[in-house]
Amino acid sequence: MTESTRIVEQVQANIDRTLEAQATQLAEVSPDLSPFIDWSRELLSGGKRFRALFCYWGWEAVTATDRDSLGVPASVVDAASALEMFHAAALVHDDIIDNSDTRRGQPAAHRRFQRLHSDAGWRGDAADFGRSGALLLGDLLLGWSDELLDRGLRGLGDPDLAASARREFNRMRTEVTYGQYLDLLEERSWHTRDEGDLLARAHRVIVYKSAKYSVEAPLAIGAAIGGASLGQLSALRDFGLPLGIAYQLRDDLLGVFGDPELTGKPSGDDLREGKRTVLIALARNKLPGNSARLLDELLGDPELTDHQVQVLQASIRESGAVDQVERIIAHNVEKARSVLADSPISADARSQLGTLADTVSRRSA
Amino acid sequence: MTESTRIVEQVQANIDRTLEAQATQLAEVSPDLSPFIDWSRELLSGGKRFRALFCYWGWEAVTATDRDSLGVPASVVDAASALEMFHAAALVHDDIIDNSDTRRGQPAAHRRFQRLHSDAGWRGDAADFGRSGALLLGDLLLGWSDELLDRGLRGLGDPDLAASARREFNRMRTEVTYGQYLDLLEERSWHTRDEGDLLARAHRVIVYKSAKYSVEAPLAIGAAIGGASLGQLSALRDFGLPLGIAYQLRDDLLGVFGDPELTGKPSGDDLREGKRTVLIALARNKLPGNSARLLDELLGDPELTDHQVQVLQASIRESGAVDQVERIIAHNVEKARSVLADSPISADARSQLGTLADTVSRRSA
Repeated sequence: MTESTRIVEQVQANIDRTLEAQATQLAEVSPDLSPFIDWSRELLSGGKRFRALFCYWGWEAVTATDRDSLGVPASVVDAASALEMFHAAALVHDDIIDNSDTRRGQPAAHRRFQRLHSDAGWRGDAADFGRSGALLLGDLLLGWSDELLDRGLRGLGDPDLAASARREFNRMRTEVTYGQYLDLLEERSWHTRDEGDLLARAHRVIVYKSAKYSVEAPLAIGAAIGGASLGQLSALRDFGLPLGIAYQLRDDLLGVFGDPELTGKPSGDDLREGKRTVLIALARNKLPGNSARLLDELLGDPELTDHQVQVLQASIRESGAVDQVERIIAHNVEKARSVLADSPISADARSQLGTLADTVSRRSA
Repeated sequence: MTESTRIVEQVQANIDRTLEAQATQLAEVSPDLSPFIDWSRELLSGGKRFRALFCYWGWEAVTATDRDSLGVPASVVDAASALEMFHAAALVHDDIIDNSDTRRGQPAAHRRFQRLHSDAGWRGDAADFGRSGALLLGDLLLGWSDELLDRGLRGLGDPDLAASARREFNRMRTEVTYGQYLDLLEERSWHTRDEGDLLARAHRVIVYKSAKYSVEAPLAIGAAIGGASLGQLSALRDFGLPLGIAYQLRDDLLGVFGDPELTGKPSGDDLREGKRTVLIALARNKLPGNSARLLDELLGDPELTDHQVQVLQASIRESGAVDQVERIIAHNVEKARSVLADSPISADARSQLGTLADTVSRRSA
């Protein structure tokens, strides 16, 4: 078994134990609460676990030479699990904001609570109840994520390392929330901004909503737990940020062109939602006036037909924006790789982070 | 200046400094984010600060005899501030769930974001944008609350005390979220439950949504920081739970009969919202069949006229339920007071907690 496989399994087992303990506490309050645990279990089983892996390799990168071979300390497993728990919370809240029906091919949490309401014949609006239930589920997961982090950092037995890992986690938590708002804001307000600013604004969303959050911060948290030197931390950041940008640009392509079988989301989901991504900003710059206007007109219409989605996909592709995004992805991965080559980190981490760089920037879902 | 006044001022100054630091970090990301800070400041200025006060007196209760007179340690101020920050988050999310227009006479956070959207002429549904913005504001405040708690407990320099205060905080955070769901569930599903269970179910909501959260948990967190003995902790809990029940029963009366000038909420707000409180359960039991049916019919109709509200108010009052709730409040306050009389805590805390018991159970807003 590879180290990456092992850490993913340890994180899953840790999350399962945590939810088991929460289930015991919940049962003391009321059986009416069981959806919170049942759906948390489903949300937190499987998934790609990129954040847990970056956390682990951030730690391994700076400890490989001087640690004993007793395996991964509980602190690292707890911090990695906290990141996955936080991510589940963010997805639950994000799906409310985006009004998404599905998540990984399954009903989104707010749709599950909505269904519970309709099936039981309760009063009031089912969609409204669905959103409220999911809002509270996300709040619970945020709290539990924090419990995991706290336990992990307490177990570390080193207040300075704990404080610096905490700082990274805190900053991540605040910045990704800002990023989610900026993402929503662009979707709703792009037409009131300067044309010339749109690309830069879309880029800023990527940095805060995803790049720092998905790659840079998990690496930094793991590295902080491992007692990284300033040089190591800054190398991992310099690797993580461009890779995180590549990760999100790939995600943007999948949001428009992804195979529903693989993404678990309807084809062209981002088009119906009206996401104003870097891809869209580039396409608008390159398309002739009337095509750009058509794009603006259709984008964000939740009722787009499959045919209209295909027209938009063709138009974006023909603009050359897809090729350009592919080039930017390749450029960012290259940038990340070149940092890796000279970084003062373990040989294993250098090699495994290189493999992860390929996985996250080339993935199909 | 009394100790209570001083702690309230210290908490306010601490919250202000925290938001100032967050404002600096926010400005590095984007000026578009400024509503998050501006509205956090408004949400977190003033208020009754009961939770901060119970946290302080929980700490004072168990440390008065052996502490020096150097004032309140930063740990206590941080924990008390964390409770207030958490409470602000809970109110922001609660107002989304309850679809409330106002909070303390000001527009609720989701209405502020909604207004921002309409004023700016952005795309999509303004109410929808409002809810999303407030959801993210609540998430931020949850995170910041946690940062304050973590800093406070780290500063304590005693891992065992920190761990036990943490446990109290964690349990509180999870249980109040369960309580919010149970509250919503009763509102929507009471007609599918056994008649005979409704009072017990309404009572369970009070315990989890409010009683433990508003009084027992803050006391226990403060006491844990102060290194309470088991006897002290259990006395404070035995005082806190009945007082918390009295606190929420008073709140339920205010939700139906409160003066809008004082509560900052429209008169009869809970009636239009359809809250299934202990007051309502008692009134239903006491009213003759046709009056009870009218109550069920009108309750939860957001379009109730002022006249209909007055009819409902009169009917509830005439049922005798108000007098009965007043007796339950008095009984619970009495129970709390009798625990206080024999509790192994400082004389000052005994006296101040007695005063607080009066304030929270008799308040008019």
